Amino acid sequence: MRKRGLDPDQVRKHLHEARERDLSYENGDIMSSMCTTPHPLAEEAHRLFLETYLGDPGLFPGTSQLEDKAVEKLANLLNLEGGDGYITTGGTESNIQALHIARNLSNSDEPSAVVPESAHFSFDKAADMLQIDLKKAELDDDYRADPSAIENLVDGDTAAIVGVAGTTETGQIDPIRELGEIAEENDAYLHVDAAFGGFVLPFLTGAPRFDFSIDAVDSVTLDPHKMGLSTIPSGGLIVRDPDALNAIRTDTPYLTSEDQYTLTGTRTGAGAASTYAALETLGRNGYRENAEICMERTKQLARRVENSRNLELTVEPVTNLVSIGLDDPGKAAEKLDEKGGKVSVSRLPEALRVVLMPHVHQETVERFVEELEEVA
Amino acid sequence: MRKRGLDPDQVRKHLHEARERDLSYENGDIMSSMCTTPHPLAEEAHRLFLETYLGDPGLFPGTSQLEDKAVEKLANLLNLEGGDGYITTGGTESNIQALHIARNLSNSDEPSAVVPESAHFSFDKAADMLQIDLKKAELDDDYRADPSAIENLVDGDTAAIVGVAGTTETGQIDPIRELGEIAEENDAYLHVDAAFGGFVLPFLTGAPRFDFSIDAVDSVTLDPHKMGLSTIPSGGLIVRDPDALNAIRTDTPYLTSEDQYTLTGTRTGAGAASTYAALETLGRNGYRENAEICMERTKQLARRVENSRNLELTVEPVTNLVSIGLDDPGKAAEKLDEKGGKVSVSRLPEALRVVLMPHVHQETVERFVEELEEVA
Repeated sequence: MRKRGLDPDQVRKHLHEARERDLSYENGDIMSSMCTTPHPLAEEAHRLFLETYLGDPGLFPGTSQLEDKAVEKLANLLNLEGGDGYITTGGTESNIQALHIARNLSNSDEPSAVVPESAHFSFDKAADMLQIDLKKAELDDDYRADPSAIENLVDGDTAAIVGVAGTTETGQIDPIRELGEIAEENDAYLHVDAAFGGFVLPFLTGAPRFDFSIDAVDSVTLDPHKMGLSTIPSGGLIVRDPDALNAIRTDTPYLTSEDQYTLTGTRTGAGAASTYAALETLGRNGYRENAEICMERTKQLARRVENSRNLELTVEPVTNLVSIGLDDPGKAAEKLDEKGGKVSVSRLPEALRVVLMPHVHQETVERFVEELEEVA
Repeated sequence: MRKRGLDPDQVRKHLHEARERDLSYENGDIMSSMCTTPHPLAEEAHRLFLETYLGDPGLFPGTSQLEDKAVEKLANLLNLEGGDGYITTGGTESNIQALHIARNLSNSDEPSAVVPESAHFSFDKAADMLQIDLKKAELDDDYRADPSAIENLVDGDTAAIVGVAGTTETGQIDPIRELGEIAEENDAYLHVDAAFGGFVLPFLTGAPRFDFSIDAVDSVTLDPHKMGLSTIPSGGLIVRDPDALNAIRTDTPYLTSEDQYTLTGTRTGAGAASTYAALETLGRNGYRENAEICMERTKQLARRVENSRNLELTVEPVTNLVSIGLDDPGKAAEKLDEKGGKVSVSRLPEALRVVLMPHVHQETVERFVEELEEVA
């Protein structure tokens, strides 16, 4: 570190130069992210609550109340009255804590979790941290969890079964109801990772059920900082039984609270305030509109891909994510990258993966398809 | 959730009302927190990088570079050339990940960690998550780790020994050099939790060494969002051997990176940018000045306590934290609370705990002592 600090204007200049090297959501460079430009009021709330933290809620009772309201609204969106949960740093923390609860509630000495092969890598992180044996079940032809493959991996040591509503690679929805039957039969905890789908599926007509309306579902991850239009870091973990959080409580001496069930300590209040602001400003109709626009772009891209000679739709999209099959997707992604746009490559299927977030406009989709056909 | 969202002005009103119910750093209400009002340029950086995240660094190469610079400066502050690390969400994540590394590097089937009784509760969290047996060693008369008590708990299963530089309850510094000798003799990983002391001790004349200048130290936690004047969430985990991070890597398909060693996934870039801005603007001299002002207030309070009939200094402060002995500290804290100021109660010793952060001014200290003498 320098002895004397730099002049503030110099620091400001460095900051702006760095920020300009980043890709931008708005000019359509980013087609691989599940994040987007937050709602203006979410940003405003974030700034207003920048100094607050919820690790010591007695210092920030106003912020703490906003979190309670946000959690209630999230539970409500997932068809749960009551329940509990908290605003996490994001889907990874939510998924880790869900498995953490399940492991601590399990009686097994060698607890395992059964997840579909499509599960997000946060479950690998969780398994390593928590010392859980992670068993990955094969998918069906539409890249969804195959209930019989899941069932084959379940045994007396199974602490948790995981289903995904809006997978990271293809956006598909696992058959949560059928996973629920397996969980109930085997007395296993059922967690649904709806980090991506949680703010899309409730607003689509005819979308399969994935939430607490299915009795077996014990907890759900959904990310306000993805399709919820809140700021980063705003994740959500909602549990059906408030007592479930007792399984992961740690005593907190010298704070205004008695204990904590969060992964972080000095937990920012900005995420909770920002989530509250987005939920309150948009309401169900606002989110429906957002989801519908994204699904329109999704269909636009899907139809263009179907009609293209070199491209193939690997599976019909059910959320706002398009998986595009072509020769050597890695090479194509690299070439697109040189042109300035970022898509990414999925493993299962090996395909290009495009996420149609609200910042991806109609013209961006058109330009993207043209560029992709050129490089394919 | 409501069908129709509220008018933005109504939401804004709710936000401001909530924020007003919070306590404020600036009016001296908060005397129990290790956080404070961030440096203005740190706040500015946070706002500028609000949309960025480092979970997918190829999308935000500018932000990613600021993180590299911030990590280098933090390592440098801790007397380490090279090394590695990252900007975490705070001390809790840093401490969890340090034990995570130590556990994954250990050959034991039943790994344990030996910590002083003064260790922060994040080590309890870590132990539960990571399934480590946490052994707590008694303190010496000055509430520091007692090396012989630590040594007595070390055995072949000891994955890590932890020392604290600036304990949460009394601000004391453990004898890190002696803990280092024990760690070396027993081939154990040595982690130093300097979440609080990391931005104080390097600037105090005659402070004992606690950092990488001691060969046995493997990793250090220090929190930019405490005395580093960065915004929440900005934690720091610095490791001596960059390879140590390999022990906790998870593969990350479909991102611009190959793997991740962070606890969170969609990790905000605002903390990294804010930390960079604070470090670059303040420099060593700026932090020295900040630490000196806080230590002056600390001495002011300590002398007032010593000269008071009903109050007692439980231990001479070495960082900007004063531990005040009196009859029934819990009752006193409650009464102070009614007057609007928040202090907190420590367990070991059972005492009032006052943190002299930069927002606690000279007059606040005077007012506090007067109020405390009244209620004592």
